[in-house]
Amino acid sequence: MLVNGTHYRTVWLDGTAVKAIDQHRLPHRFEVATLATYRDTADAIRTMLVRGAGAIGVAAGFGMAQATLAAPDGARFRPFVEEAAALFKATRPTAQNLFYAVDRLLAAVKLLNDRPASARHRAVEVAQAIADEDAAAGERIGQIGEPLIPEKGRVMTHCNAGWLAFADWGTALAPIYVAARKGRPLFVYVNETRPRGQGAKLTAWELAQEGVPHALIADVAAGSFMQRGEVDLIIVGADRIAANGDVANKIGTFTLAVLAREHRIPFYVAAPCSTIDPACSAGSQIPIEERSVEEVVTATGLADNGREVTVRLAPAGCPVRNPAFDVTPAAYISGIITERGMAPATTDGIRRICAGL
Amino acid sequence: MLVNGTHYRTVWLDGTAVKAIDQHRLPHRFEVATLATYRDTADAIRTMLVRGAGAIGVAAGFGMAQATLAAPDGARFRPFVEEAAALFKATRPTAQNLFYAVDRLLAAVKLLNDRPASARHRAVEVAQAIADEDAAAGERIGQIGEPLIPEKGRVMTHCNAGWLAFADWGTALAPIYVAARKGRPLFVYVNETRPRGQGAKLTAWELAQEGVPHALIADVAAGSFMQRGEVDLIIVGADRIAANGDVANKIGTFTLAVLAREHRIPFYVAAPCSTIDPACSAGSQIPIEERSVEEVVTATGLADNGREVTVRLAPAGCPVRNPAFDVTPAAYISGIITERGMAPATTDGIRRICAGL
Repeated sequence: MLVNGTHYRTVWLDGTAVKAIDQHRLPHRFEVATLATYRDTADAIRTMLVRGAGAIGVAAGFGMAQATLAAPDGARFRPFVEEAAALFKATRPTAQNLFYAVDRLLAAVKLLNDRPASARHRAVEVAQAIADEDAAAGERIGQIGEPLIPEKGRVMTHCNAGWLAFADWGTALAPIYVAARKGRPLFVYVNETRPRGQGAKLTAWELAQEGVPHALIADVAAGSFMQRGEVDLIIVGADRIAANGDVANKIGTFTLAVLAREHRIPFYVAAPCSTIDPACSAGSQIPIEERSVEEVVTATGLADNGREVTVRLAPAGCPVRNPAFDVTPAAYISGIITERGMAPATTDGIRRICAGL
Repeated sequence: MLVNGTHYRTVWLDGTAVKAIDQHRLPHRFEVATLATYRDTADAIRTMLVRGAGAIGVAAGFGMAQATLAAPDGARFRPFVEEAAALFKATRPTAQNLFYAVDRLLAAVKLLNDRPASARHRAVEVAQAIADEDAAAGERIGQIGEPLIPEKGRVMTHCNAGWLAFADWGTALAPIYVAARKGRPLFVYVNETRPRGQGAKLTAWELAQEGVPHALIADVAAGSFMQRGEVDLIIVGADRIAANGDVANKIGTFTLAVLAREHRIPFYVAAPCSTIDPACSAGSQIPIEERSVEEVVTATGLADNGREVTVRLAPAGCPVRNPAFDVTPAAYISGIITERGMAPATTDGIRRICAGL
């Protein structure tokens, strides 16, 4: 990823500190936060300074490595690391990659409990591997997805499934970045993605940094651009993929899928295989989180005085419904782009990609 | 309409002043603006202190009456009134009801040019008639539309086509108010309607004042509630209806229509016959206004200090597309509720309702 022309990752280890692009400050300021201790890193995940499934997992891995570096030698080493693991697992309840990363670090350290120096070395290696694998999966998804972009290159996306949500590359935006590096014509419609505005705040910023032509639109305008024939392809990310190919993703994804089918526009989901939950048989089994009233009745942005201000949009006490995700049935999905290849959104397609067939 | 339990109209004449509910201040403050002169009334239309097709027409009628009251006797009477008419016609370029009201006042006064006292009296009568007719059309639309509301009473609406957009009653919300007065169970899903937020700011406030149970939702969540089977009926207003039944309305309306058809939910448009443009053969002929970048990259609301503040949501310089309206093809529309009855959204249906058949 490029920020002001310099290559960055979203989260990385720098000596004993974790560094992370501060997503609270974007798009108005680009700041790199220094998370000096594993407790600081856990706080950054909890407060969403780092957000996005992949980036959360990478941060948790580095945070666990910090914990091993901070743990005392001797009998206290193992309990110290296990307490840190519990702390990380309590930061965000639903992020699958978080648990994957913490458990992988715990398993690596466990084998070397009696040799703290070796365990620390190994923990740093494993955390770095998780970050590198995340970035490599994104790049591979980009290479596999890039040929799907039609000649005119007019792609619509929702929320932020770009490099800010991963260590690098991202998922839904990765094919766009691969196409951009090939010099292909591109134009990305960025849905603002109310209520939290990840499209306006993060995706628009990412694309500007990469020099990809784009336009921010109100979510309500997506259908109008499809109706006018101005959208060639839709790519979104995923929060969870069921065994039958149903996809839970940011609220509004299902509406785009219905509009896409109505207008015969290909609709793809891009996600690493770690997003597939084989234990979940269908989308109807995925619990849909209802989030706070405040997200819908307010907006947060930069005031004229240069400060971030939250303003109330609706009447005081206004009742709200705020589902954070929706489920797109497999029948609406043209395909699922994974780092292992393209999977049809079917039970057989999901089974085969999970088995590496 | 009820505000804090008291009956109001949106705009009315009080002696020589026009009074209007200040829609700039809603929902955070309920204030009645006093527009002392016809120039103040024209300014109120221009700055959108009064907005909504019907309310603009009613305000323009009262403003023209103010102009006749202010016009000098003798030879200057007629030029004075005609200059005022030109001023009103220049306030908003597209609001059809504005031109209708101003021309109706001009015609009435013209007959009495040589008798200013009689002309003034007649102008006040005609302006009041326009307001009363607007309110009566809304009430009639409510009576005709109310039986369409199914037993469970779960209705979704978009933008604001309630009484704030007319003298009283409104169009899309009128059937809901008639049902509420009958004590029927109701629950209204209010789409916030980015980018300007008329749902969050006006419709949510109107429904709260009338005691109608409702929930504000992000526009992206509409499809999810339909998918869950929680929406029985969708009613929206219209900005212009073509001779073939295609409907131009606030951006996002088309998306709701597509989602409604996908889920077999009835989708109705409510509008007075004055919204029908028989000279426009199809929706493709309706020009779609692109509005300012600022609407999409900002949000305006109440800050903690009690002041209205505009905050920037997106990166500085972010490119934007901002169509203000979209066109819903007639095939998606279950029917058009007018004050003369229900019209099928077909060329024949529109022709018959216009002819009063």
